[in-house]
Amino acid sequence: MKAPSKQAFVPFVSVANMMKIVLHLGVERMMADLVQEIEDDFRRWGAFDKTPRVASHSDVGVIELMPTSDGETYGFKYVNGHPSNMKKGLQTVTAFGLLADVQTGYPILLSEMTILTALRTAATSAMAAKWLAPKGARVMALIGNGAQAEFQALAFKAICGIEEVRLFDIDPAATGKCVTNLQGRGITLTPCQSPQEAIEGAQIITTVTADKQYATILTDNMVGAGVHINGVGGDCPGKTELHRDILLRSSIFVEYPPQTRVEGEIQQLASDHPVTELWQVITGAVAGRTSSSQVTLFDSVGFAIEDFAALRYIHGKLAETGMFEQLDMIADPDEPRDLFGMILRSA
Amino acid sequence: MKAPSKQAFVPFVSVANMMKIVLHLGVERMMADLVQEIEDDFRRWGAFDKTPRVASHSDVGVIELMPTSDGETYGFKYVNGHPSNMKKGLQTVTAFGLLADVQTGYPILLSEMTILTALRTAATSAMAAKWLAPKGARVMALIGNGAQAEFQALAFKAICGIEEVRLFDIDPAATGKCVTNLQGRGITLTPCQSPQEAIEGAQIITTVTADKQYATILTDNMVGAGVHINGVGGDCPGKTELHRDILLRSSIFVEYPPQTRVEGEIQQLASDHPVTELWQVITGAVAGRTSSSQVTLFDSVGFAIEDFAALRYIHGKLAETGMFEQLDMIADPDEPRDLFGMILRSA
Repeated sequence: MKAPSKQAFVPFVSVANMMKIVLHLGVERMMADLVQEIEDDFRRWGAFDKTPRVASHSDVGVIELMPTSDGETYGFKYVNGHPSNMKKGLQTVTAFGLLADVQTGYPILLSEMTILTALRTAATSAMAAKWLAPKGARVMALIGNGAQAEFQALAFKAICGIEEVRLFDIDPAATGKCVTNLQGRGITLTPCQSPQEAIEGAQIITTVTADKQYATILTDNMVGAGVHINGVGGDCPGKTELHRDILLRSSIFVEYPPQTRVEGEIQQLASDHPVTELWQVITGAVAGRTSSSQVTLFDSVGFAIEDFAALRYIHGKLAETGMFEQLDMIADPDEPRDLFGMILRSA
Repeated sequence: MKAPSKQAFVPFVSVANMMKIVLHLGVERMMADLVQEIEDDFRRWGAFDKTPRVASHSDVGVIELMPTSDGETYGFKYVNGHPSNMKKGLQTVTAFGLLADVQTGYPILLSEMTILTALRTAATSAMAAKWLAPKGARVMALIGNGAQAEFQALAFKAICGIEEVRLFDIDPAATGKCVTNLQGRGITLTPCQSPQEAIEGAQIITTVTADKQYATILTDNMVGAGVHINGVGGDCPGKTELHRDILLRSSIFVEYPPQTRVEGEIQQLASDHPVTELWQVITGAVAGRTSSSQVTLFDSVGFAIEDFAALRYIHGKLAETGMFEQLDMIADPDEPRDLFGMILRSA
């Protein structure tokens, strides 16, 4: 059989290669790089095609497609969210993504994104906190110690200078796992017995729990003046983490309002409740934190431009790392109109 | 490094393996099988999540995501349409697709779909003609002899009993390619010098040209009473093949009106112009052809359920053919919350 043409091949970053890339570059350097890439793309917000993700809901979870384009490169991510997966020994969130050349429509990268989503979610959280958290924040409460927890801790260390992370999970085994994994990375790790204990002395509160239900991880009396809340776990209709009263006294920052109003904590509020788009803080068009007593909330649900930035970052590392395979994914006959003949000749 | 878990692997049908599958099963058998699968899914139309495809348009083409779900299985296709690609030696349409388990969100199949789309498009055309074309049709005009042409010819032979195909293309080399590729398959092949010549004596007229513009491949005076028109090439905004007058005297059948009104030939008509949904003809709820003088038009643009059916068909053939690879695409740590630890342990 004749070998496929060069156009037929799409560079593919498998899970094994993504792990190699993370170990090769280092988690904290990747966080810093990703914050840079995401900020760069948030600064040119107007250049992107934007649409709320296309979700297919079922009684146990959601499968979503998250496309965007900057006119030169097109990207999308496939991602699921199935809180019940954990009981089956599966990941709550798995993902993969693709970049393509807008001029030809041909894919230029296919990549695992379960790991890459964990990295970009934490990088986006830390990026938001860089602009919104009180100056000199050194202590973070980390409530929910699942698959996203270590990434959050390391992102906040690398980007915001967090020195102590106070950990709480309803399952102490999850906290123990975090402590083991984060040992020796220059973070003081303090396991706590309750959310109340975790937030003691914390200037930043990160909530990253996974139940698909209206939960109340934080109540109003737990949140003191001046803190920054990084709300990561509430990210689909019917799934929230914060009591509504907290939202009512917070300055709320979001990625893309048409999506966040459906999926984020603010689904609990009126559809015209004022929120600030994070990209406008980054461009300087709108102020972020304006006083030391203000409660700021990043109502994170994840947006396609973050995945786009992360995929472009990985694409840019292919030549340097060589950590990819070539996938025979695109039928590309020598004569483009001779698709049928290509099949015949392959015999 | 520890080997990835079984859940981490997604069966992947490469272009090379899809060609092997086509040669192993045979094109005509695949067409018959695909018509069966697509009809089965059209019969249970109400069971599917339906949404117009999510399109990202540029000045040179379009990139689309086409998701659907029947509540048990989720599927989507990535597909581009770039008419200018041919001049660059590239395919106008390339595609790949994925199936996932709705209960877990985990992918169960990744497949090339450039070839599979060509097969399912032709199968859908022939399926529509089976219900709509005049009885005893034996001659088909095939206008546009590009990448889709041979698939159309063989589908109409296998499903509708077409014995003669009259070929026309503005580029005679394309016609020559078709004649060469279809030699010896039991179809009388008649190259023609004009569209007028091609439609002489034809009971079915298939138009499958690729220019992204309002074109007029057929004018009103060319279409006699009683023919069935299979309009395949008009499939995005600004891209049509038939003169509006033809539409006005045809009974028009479509896949999914919210999509076809934007992308199909009927974008030339008022948004409330009556059309019939093909699935309703197949279930028997609505009549198809009601007289021998009626002009019927299948305004084909392609719909997600056809891709879903095609992907499920390929998925069902994996065990029989063994023609696939395993792709390490899903990060799946032994302890689902220990994604970070999996990376550490891979060192």
